Amino acid sequence: MSEENINKNEFPELKNDTFLKACRGEEVPYVPVWIMRQAGRYLPEFKSVRADVDFFSVCRTPELACKVTLQPLDRFPLDAAIIFSDILVVPQAMGIEVQMIPGKGPFFPNPIRTIEDLSRVQFPVDVNKELGYVFDALTLTRKRLEGRVPLIGFTGAPWTLMTYCIEGSGGTTMSNSKSWLYKHPAESHKFLSMLTRVCIDYLLGQIKAGAQALQIFDSWSNELSPAMFKEYCLPYLVQIGKEVKAVHPEIPLICFAKGSNFALEDLSKSGAYDVLGIDWTIEPSVAREMVADRVSLQGNLDPCVLYCGDQVIRDQTQKMLQSFGTTKRLIANLGHGMHPTHPIEGPESYVKAVHELSKQMINK
Amino acid sequence: MSEENINKNEFPELKNDTFLKACRGEEVPYVPVWIMRQAGRYLPEFKSVRADVDFFSVCRTPELACKVTLQPLDRFPLDAAIIFSDILVVPQAMGIEVQMIPGKGPFFPNPIRTIEDLSRVQFPVDVNKELGYVFDALTLTRKRLEGRVPLIGFTGAPWTLMTYCIEGSGGTTMSNSKSWLYKHPAESHKFLSMLTRVCIDYLLGQIKAGAQALQIFDSWSNELSPAMFKEYCLPYLVQIGKEVKAVHPEIPLICFAKGSNFALEDLSKSGAYDVLGIDWTIEPSVAREMVADRVSLQGNLDPCVLYCGDQVIRDQTQKMLQSFGTTKRLIANLGHGMHPTHPIEGPESYVKAVHELSKQMINK
Repeated sequence: MSEENINKNEFPELKNDTFLKACRGEEVPYVPVWIMRQAGRYLPEFKSVRADVDFFSVCRTPELACKVTLQPLDRFPLDAAIIFSDILVVPQAMGIEVQMIPGKGPFFPNPIRTIEDLSRVQFPVDVNKELGYVFDALTLTRKRLEGRVPLIGFTGAPWTLMTYCIEGSGGTTMSNSKSWLYKHPAESHKFLSMLTRVCIDYLLGQIKAGAQALQIFDSWSNELSPAMFKEYCLPYLVQIGKEVKAVHPEIPLICFAKGSNFALEDLSKSGAYDVLGIDWTIEPSVAREMVADRVSLQGNLDPCVLYCGDQVIRDQTQKMLQSFGTTKRLIANLGHGMHPTHPIEGPESYVKAVHELSKQMINK
Repeated sequence: MSEENINKNEFPELKNDTFLKACRGEEVPYVPVWIMRQAGRYLPEFKSVRADVDFFSVCRTPELACKVTLQPLDRFPLDAAIIFSDILVVPQAMGIEVQMIPGKGPFFPNPIRTIEDLSRVQFPVDVNKELGYVFDALTLTRKRLEGRVPLIGFTGAPWTLMTYCIEGSGGTTMSNSKSWLYKHPAESHKFLSMLTRVCIDYLLGQIKAGAQALQIFDSWSNELSPAMFKEYCLPYLVQIGKEVKAVHPEIPLICFAKGSNFALEDLSKSGAYDVLGIDWTIEPSVAREMVADRVSLQGNLDPCVLYCGDQVIRDQTQKMLQSFGTTKRLIANLGHGMHPTHPIEGPESYVKAVHELSKQMINK
């Protein structure tokens, strides 16, 4: 895509800015809602795209990434789109091969097992060259959205990416990556710093390409003790937020350090993020107390509720909204991504419940 | 085993009661230590027993269960033994088939998927008939221990057992079992009440057979939100502790609701437990503050530290002991069981470090 095409003045005017307002803590007519993995395998139209094309080819083909990004918006009145991609495109950009094994998840044929393996990591990275396909997908999607809702870009956080690179797959005891931290603190910081640099350049590139908000996923931060989080996650999360904010203070930044509830206060005081994601393992009222009005909160319905039919979804949404205590500084989401086995009716009911119930609360 | 054989007066006199003293909050000469899954696949002598006999046959053969229970004590100066068994013997006792698939873990050929399936669950259960083999293993082991250290018995907690029965295996998103709670609250409480009854009878039987302390494992409690924990875990955990204490106030009870850190205060105030287990996702000093001096704490080293050699283990043990703040009301353990891939030197260094460093702290 040529430089001319990514001139932001060409992007259509935004019609629904409820999500961006909630990120900034401004008044909203209702609580905005989007759902992690809202473009995913629970949608038949997504599966039909994936039937012919492997996972990373969808990521690497702007037309297809754009197509699946828009799919859930045609079904549900979501308040934001999130670009279809994967956090593991960053290790790929650093020369580390990642495959997606159907039914199993990501697989690294040559994981970073020893500190000597670090020499195999490509650094620095020209993100325009290595990740230009994501930027192209963002620009195309931003245009095709026609201003319906804002477009979110994202990256994995350094520790989560490091974990994958060392483990070579997800869902383990994280023994290898956590042992790295204990055994090789200097090399761990080196690797995390490299990943941090690439994440920052990647996020800045996403903004340039059209992303209107950015989320950083630290999906494995809950494997670390509070002391290890403070040493190996927090500084890099803060660095990313601050360096991106220094260039683009107007772009809302969301940090989702899943399950690391103890970190909410520190993260909210860091000034590096506008929004903090939470999962269902913390009561919203407790999270609200920890962050006060320093940041907006995003979450936190248990995804399993979406299996349980309209009435249960409505009841649980009501409880959640009431526990958050205020409809300001709030973005409704799940505490984790959609499952491939979720029924379509689940997100449909949830989006409806959030909109209707929050409007009632605001107009009371 | 005949009634005569389980006459407790025949049990050898206890020589090392440091663990029991720490459970009760009495003065100790050093911090006692035992390790979850201390009898396990990381031991070559354990693997050699398992080479010829499948997992549940070891559980069901008192001679073998006793043999593997004692194995780690011959290697390390541990302060307690825990009977070799599995939490899934309780579903088996309730007529639900459980297989152990090598390399994969537990598998239920006919899980409890629908509320109609509840009618398949055998209840009430004659624990002497269905779980007598565990009682025999306890009695035999208590004798063979010759009073070296106390013998711990255990059970899974009702919610964790219910999860396995419904999911049919571990390590999933818990969608089925959590959906049960949301969709079928009455039937969930019914199932949990049945499991609670069996757990209580089972624990009382274990005491009669020679167990000198008991641990309740709620391994999947961290999948629940604080509100769901309060409704579906806490009441049953408290009921178990109180009913066992009503009959045997002298037997220390340990509750390990893994990762449900928010519950520590409630559990410590319930009066149902003497000791609460914690994993590494909470700073020991924070846990200590939450429970004050109402209970002892047990934990909480990250098992991954045991891969990292003597010096790292010693440093991390020092940090842990210092964070607990006092050597009283403390039992050292890991925050999770031993991994099959752990080196033997790991627990060896850990036990040594706990003993030496805590003695230094006490004698200061």
